[in-house]
Amino acid sequence: MTEDSIIGKLRRRSPLIGDDCAVIPSPTGQDLLLKADLSIEGVHFTRESSAEAIGARAVARSLSDIAAMGGTPLYCLVSLALAPWTDQQWMNGFYRGVYEMLRKAKASLAGGDLSHASQLICDVMLCGSIPKGKALLRSGARLGDALYVSGPLGGWRNKRTIVPRLKFGRKLVGKATACMDISDGLALDLHRLCKASGVAAQLDHVPLLKGATLDQALHDGEDYELLFTVPPRVKAPGIRIGSIAKGKPGSVRYGGQVLEPIGYDHTQQHS
Amino acid sequence: MTEDSIIGKLRRRSPLIGDDCAVIPSPTGQDLLLKADLSIEGVHFTRESSAEAIGARAVARSLSDIAAMGGTPLYCLVSLALAPWTDQQWMNGFYRGVYEMLRKAKASLAGGDLSHASQLICDVMLCGSIPKGKALLRSGARLGDALYVSGPLGGWRNKRTIVPRLKFGRKLVGKATACMDISDGLALDLHRLCKASGVAAQLDHVPLLKGATLDQALHDGEDYELLFTVPPRVKAPGIRIGSIAKGKPGSVRYGGQVLEPIGYDHTQQHS
Repeated sequence: MTEDSIIGKLRRRSPLIGDDCAVIPSPTGQDLLLKADLSIEGVHFTRESSAEAIGARAVARSLSDIAAMGGTPLYCLVSLALAPWTDQQWMNGFYRGVYEMLRKAKASLAGGDLSHASQLICDVMLCGSIPKGKALLRSGARLGDALYVSGPLGGWRNKRTIVPRLKFGRKLVGKATACMDISDGLALDLHRLCKASGVAAQLDHVPLLKGATLDQALHDGEDYELLFTVPPRVKAPGIRIGSIAKGKPGSVRYGGQVLEPIGYDHTQQHS
Repeated sequence: MTEDSIIGKLRRRSPLIGDDCAVIPSPTGQDLLLKADLSIEGVHFTRESSAEAIGARAVARSLSDIAAMGGTPLYCLVSLALAPWTDQQWMNGFYRGVYEMLRKAKASLAGGDLSHASQLICDVMLCGSIPKGKALLRSGARLGDALYVSGPLGGWRNKRTIVPRLKFGRKLVGKATACMDISDGLALDLHRLCKASGVAAQLDHVPLLKGATLDQALHDGEDYELLFTVPPRVKAPGIRIGSIAKGKPGSVRYGGQVLEPIGYDHTQQHS
């Protein structure tokens, strides 16, 4: 039972599920974007990180999903289950990180919940907006499109903070045919984009962050760069890494080989 | 550091925090309601409960907050951290409970997140709507108002399921001066309503569920009935339990005594 198989099953019943955010049609000129992201001690961070970094990162994860739709974040709910090792000072630091990340994104804290658990767990919900019908979905990539990323990859061990690509994402509205953020490694996330679009991809080049290995860029999580496609001959910002090609929907080729969709699966216990 | 003191501190910086839901003004005729509620193994339920009941209850908690504002639930995000003791069959049961509760409330599952943790944790976010400016707040109770509950109390050990009072809440729109749901016991929640309104209350009568004790009704959590006030001489559904009186803001008198605001505090480890 993988993360993708569970989501696939839910999606058959709930068609709003499956993209980086749910896109809710609104009677106004703006559609609503909704997204929730868990941050869990021992999975997404360790308690050795500063409280401020944990708070900022938890919010950045959801902001990155709003960025991937080309949207603008508006309101945020933070649900926090406190672990026994936290204290008032830790809480102050955590919310400092939350508020600072929201301030940079021009979004507001609107609520949440508080409780306690044996390990620290945080769930961040974001509500954003996007001009009606303009959300960047995973499903719009077409044969011949060029494939891009917003920056070099391999972030999990080599990047200290997540910078949600909000401005970058908004620039892609009306230009990109498909977009998502890379949270579980390029190999798995590119497979997901191709599967949603019913296409295959040819990967030519994997740009690496300083200090990152190819394996980290392909299979590690927590990059939070945007992965997107644009029609041929359309100019785009970012780094070109390949193109949309003929092949089995979801399949990715790299260096003459099939790239397996192996990446970070949050439903599995990792060592 | 109690739940109320943390929320009070956040509220000074984020005025949308502090009521049962955040009320987001919208350019349409409807305001947006946002709410998140955690459900944690060992705090809100035990693993001995059926998966279906855990899922249904997790959603009902947030629906109850929408009910307390007089609103209509629309979209739901469910974030789930799976414990090692869960399996596919458990997941199927959990989502059956989620979908059944949402179906009754005419709301849709729109997304969420999946991960794993050492204990089962679920965070349910709900997005609802309410006619512009009509949300039932905690802060509108006035001297002389009558105090009501939507049903008998003492639910935590004596009620098997939460039935969110959505229809009841909508009937109170334009009629109740203040409203909230009772999730942490009547004593603490009535204190909160009075404090938010800057008034005191005189409690005359505490209606008990079959099998419930007065102590459970006053100080236990998980009732999910609505607590509300109406102007004198306005007819209201529900059970009259007292009235808004002169006194120190937040203070409650019952049987000639001051009733201490003691109830369920989710930030504290309970035995």
